[in-house]
Amino acid sequence: MSTESAEKGVCCVVESFEQIGSQWRLVVLHDLQEGEKRFNELKRSTGASSRTLSRVLDDLGEMGFVSRRTEADAPIATYYSLSEKGHSLSPVFEEIENWAEEWL
Amino acid sequence: MSTESAEKGVCCVVESFEQIGSQWRLVVLHDLQEGEKRFNELKRSTGASSRTLSRVLDDLGEMGFVSRRTEADAPIATYYSLSEKGHSLSPVFEEIENWAEEWL
Repeated sequence: MSTESAEKGVCCVVESFEQIGSQWRLVVLHDLQEGEKRFNELKRSTGASSRTLSRVLDDLGEMGFVSRRTEADAPIATYYSLSEKGHSLSPVFEEIENWAEEWL
Repeated sequence: MSTESAEKGVCCVVESFEQIGSQWRLVVLHDLQEGEKRFNELKRSTGASSRTLSRVLDDLGEMGFVSRRTEADAPIATYYSLSEKGHSLSPVFEEIENWAEEWL
């Protein structure tokens, strides 16, 4: 019983990190916890290249963490924000920040 | 003010993942949350090769997450367990498990 739940635990942790465990994905997800941002804002705040940021936003969109909406401004602006799934990571980030504050 | 703390937050998250963000490190750290284990037990429970597991345990030892002790059994056995720093990750794992249960 305890072995089974441990295995389930390990499996969940690995599976979670397959989705969110790349550094750029984490940085973008964490950055969007603050609220909706435009592509260029995210570029500035994360320090990612346009190419990397595009790819990461596409991946996060496909996995359902990030939503995008387009505003007919001049020039046309695309806004990125967290979906419910993206917001649901906030307790994970909180615990990582608590840990980092104490241990890094 | 909010920008500063956001930057600090992003930075902490990235820095944390530089330490714990590789899949094998996470699996081993998570596995040791259950308690002290021998090398071969860890090999079985994680599915890592001897070579990978040695390297990961060395890395985690150097970073202060894992302690080792040797028992003069026949054959000599090495036991691995979490240090205080390693145990301190348990709230992070708990939040990841909660998240995974709901979203994966």
